[in-house]
Amino acid sequence: MLTRSPTQSLTEQLSARISERIRNRLLAPGARLPSVRQCAQQNGVSPSTVVAAYDQLLAQGLVQARKNRGFFVREGGRAAADADAGATDPAPAGQRLATDAVGRAARGVAPVNATALIRGMFHKINDQPQPGMGVFPSQWLESAFMPAAVRKVANARALQDFSLQYGEPLGDAGLRRQLAKRLDAFGVHTTPEHIITTVGATHALDIVSRTLLRPGDPVMVEEPGWAVEFARLAALGMRILPVPRRADGPDLAVMARYCEVHRPKLYVSVSVLHNPTGHCLAPGSAHRVLQLADAHGFHVVEDDSYSHIAPEHAIRLAALDGLQRTIYVSGFAKILAPNWRVGFLAAPPALLEPLLDTKLLTTLTTPALLEKALALCMEQGQLRRHAERIRTRLDAARARSVKLALAAGCRFAAEPAGLFGWVDTGVDTDALSQRMLDEGYLLAPGALFHAERKPGPLMRINFATTQDAAFWRVFERLRAEQDRLR
Amino acid sequence: MLTRSPTQSLTEQLSARISERIRNRLLAPGARLPSVRQCAQQNGVSPSTVVAAYDQLLAQGLVQARKNRGFFVREGGRAAADADAGATDPAPAGQRLATDAVGRAARGVAPVNATALIRGMFHKINDQPQPGMGVFPSQWLESAFMPAAVRKVANARALQDFSLQYGEPLGDAGLRRQLAKRLDAFGVHTTPEHIITTVGATHALDIVSRTLLRPGDPVMVEEPGWAVEFARLAALGMRILPVPRRADGPDLAVMARYCEVHRPKLYVSVSVLHNPTGHCLAPGSAHRVLQLADAHGFHVVEDDSYSHIAPEHAIRLAALDGLQRTIYVSGFAKILAPNWRVGFLAAPPALLEPLLDTKLLTTLTTPALLEKALALCMEQGQLRRHAERIRTRLDAARARSVKLALAAGCRFAAEPAGLFGWVDTGVDTDALSQRMLDEGYLLAPGALFHAERKPGPLMRINFATTQDAAFWRVFERLRAEQDRLR
Repeated sequence: MLTRSPTQSLTEQLSARISERIRNRLLAPGARLPSVRQCAQQNGVSPSTVVAAYDQLLAQGLVQARKNRGFFVREGGRAAADADAGATDPAPAGQRLATDAVGRAARGVAPVNATALIRGMFHKINDQPQPGMGVFPSQWLESAFMPAAVRKVANARALQDFSLQYGEPLGDAGLRRQLAKRLDAFGVHTTPEHIITTVGATHALDIVSRTLLRPGDPVMVEEPGWAVEFARLAALGMRILPVPRRADGPDLAVMARYCEVHRPKLYVSVSVLHNPTGHCLAPGSAHRVLQLADAHGFHVVEDDSYSHIAPEHAIRLAALDGLQRTIYVSGFAKILAPNWRVGFLAAPPALLEPLLDTKLLTTLTTPALLEKALALCMEQGQLRRHAERIRTRLDAARARSVKLALAAGCRFAAEPAGLFGWVDTGVDTDALSQRMLDEGYLLAPGALFHAERKPGPLMRINFATTQDAAFWRVFERLRAEQDRLR
Repeated sequence: MLTRSPTQSLTEQLSARISERIRNRLLAPGARLPSVRQCAQQNGVSPSTVVAAYDQLLAQGLVQARKNRGFFVREGGRAAADADAGATDPAPAGQRLATDAVGRAARGVAPVNATALIRGMFHKINDQPQPGMGVFPSQWLESAFMPAAVRKVANARALQDFSLQYGEPLGDAGLRRQLAKRLDAFGVHTTPEHIITTVGATHALDIVSRTLLRPGDPVMVEEPGWAVEFARLAALGMRILPVPRRADGPDLAVMARYCEVHRPKLYVSVSVLHNPTGHCLAPGSAHRVLQLADAHGFHVVEDDSYSHIAPEHAIRLAALDGLQRTIYVSGFAKILAPNWRVGFLAAPPALLEPLLDTKLLTTLTTPALLEKALALCMEQGQLRRHAERIRTRLDAARARSVKLALAAGCRFAAEPAGLFGWVDTGVDTDALSQRMLDEGYLLAPGALFHAERKPGPLMRINFATTQDAAFWRVFERLRAEQDRLR
């Protein structure tokens, strides 16, 4: 709520808040601002205050008016904002225009809306863990063994040895041995020589796409699915074929049709604890997916990012096909340390060399310090026990969050499991998330999980960060308000 | 030299040595083996021994015979070798063939020869620092301050704080402040908000290419130049326009012609201590390059990887144009710790957002631990003093290496400067480097530095690792031998 202040008028406060949100990408280019009437009601100010604030944003080049449709965030708004702020020596007008044009052209390659919203999610609203975030709150991940492992590696004489050379192209051998052992435990049989470490699972997925695909190639991706995956494939110029994800796996009829019509090269799947639904692949579906892959000659990349909190008997595609057509990808952002960016892939023998070539062309090698510290955490069983503790804590949190969500009038679009809930709120979550931001809460609106940003009533909640009744009270109030404004 | 052994025949020894080299990519797919007569002379064995060894390699599928042309390393040789070695459960024959075909297709995307040779350079021949390597020997980089900085960062309570969240999309703010200060010192004026940290300079160059270019776009790259850059641009599907690099800068007439005919989108330049020649850009050339960029609307990416050993008054393109069209890229692999993979780019304001989007799509964030340790090393002036010591030591090493190289009958194709010498040996360096490998020395043959692998008499030497008369004696002997065999 805005309040009168001697130093800043209500108009200035309102325009400053919106302009900050645009700069931080919490309002994406192309997004529509609320109508003058709505905005006035939401903020308890007069319509003329809103009109004046929107005029200021127009003058700053941050928004544009479209006839009879309202106000929209300008594409390339942030660049304009920077130029206005005089953050660097402005070039002569002609020159800057030319650069801006190229900037816009470049932005045209990457799907701005998706990345903008993801970027928004990286922005720290405040110190509270947020309902929309994709990882555990840092408090949950705290441990004594992680810093101990880093110190041990950092103290060793070996720090100089491994830091002062590029290191092994495949990644730290000790870590790869631990990873092979871990994969073995759930039926994915490989050797350390077929594992490549990467800068997080994201980098592994990027390496796979760049190695197997050429621009224009059709790729099947589960929908709903994670925005970064859609955005990266789109930025690489791939043709995305969204496959509806059901409780037991992908919609096989849709996949079969795609195979006949488009001959896709790759299928990207979060088979276990799918993001955002929490679904796990059923064995029968897994088998049929691999039959399709064999019959139509596509590869599968299995993103097992949630493996550490997965049910014990969850089935992996890579286990079924013995890493013949399936490339297995995982990482440690969800269970150990999001910022370490340690991920890996396990490759079919025939793909090992081309995948390693791509790693080399993107980052040369990867930092051994964090890989060695991680290997220590795995070797001593600490990571496994840590994961068990987190699973227990998450089960309790999920029970509480589900109860609160249902009490707040939400419906679960998927059976609650894992870290995320896929929740039907009954109102447009794009608009709702803007209102929740006013109150200091970051949501993950459903549009983030669609290949083509489709606003709708769904949102993803993080069970670890939605156990607080205070959040749900604000949620209920704003949802009711939004309902009334319709 | 091969020697009779009770456990392994000469034939077996010879075929094992060649097969190991193929597996380690020190013999690239497509490379020609020496003729039977040459190989017999070089190894002091009879021609029939060589014929038997080559037959074994043929049977293993590692090489192929081409009528009247000799024996060549098979494309996809390593994958075949793996399958033969039974490293994983082999799939039914039909299935494996299908996978192999896809593997080969994928390899077709990446230019195998270049990456294969680069990969060879990452292979550890023995514990000796090698004449062909691209970094300082690890002994040169040893310091007390580097491990101290890591320990300080690892001991802090902050380790948990920054490890347990994704971290800042731009990279560690403290490091970015230090980087802005350092850039300021040589005339590149920017702010920490326009710097993006990356996984080494390679990642920065990759981000720039992916943001500014679409497949098929023409890109000007200096030639000779670094193989990773050629290989990455080719793998991304770009059209490479090689620009001859002269002592004072790129060949401006060639650039102007390219601009007229192809309308290139980007020019990739190692302006200072160019790899492999050691040339530094003259101010007049820099000015004219930027005039061309303005007139024809292309961007420049300036790779300043050797900045820490650069002459004091070396001129940067980014300084001249005030980061309007130029994206500045650098890293710390050459001066602090190759394995840390910390690099960065300084971006024109209009390109900041799209570049940051691309970073997010490739690795999300970057590890703060190493960035914070580096910031400490910079803040306390230790890195600067370390670089001064290394420059002094390198000057002495260069003087010795140059003397030895000249005495060994080499000619310098470029005035010796920086870390690398660009040396004319008078014989084919592709063949010479295979012979030197037999003696445990890794060379960097000139072909590595051309957009299209062109064998020739040039090679790059590392001044820090060629001060040893023993190396030059072996070099002289084998070069003379090769001369006789022509």
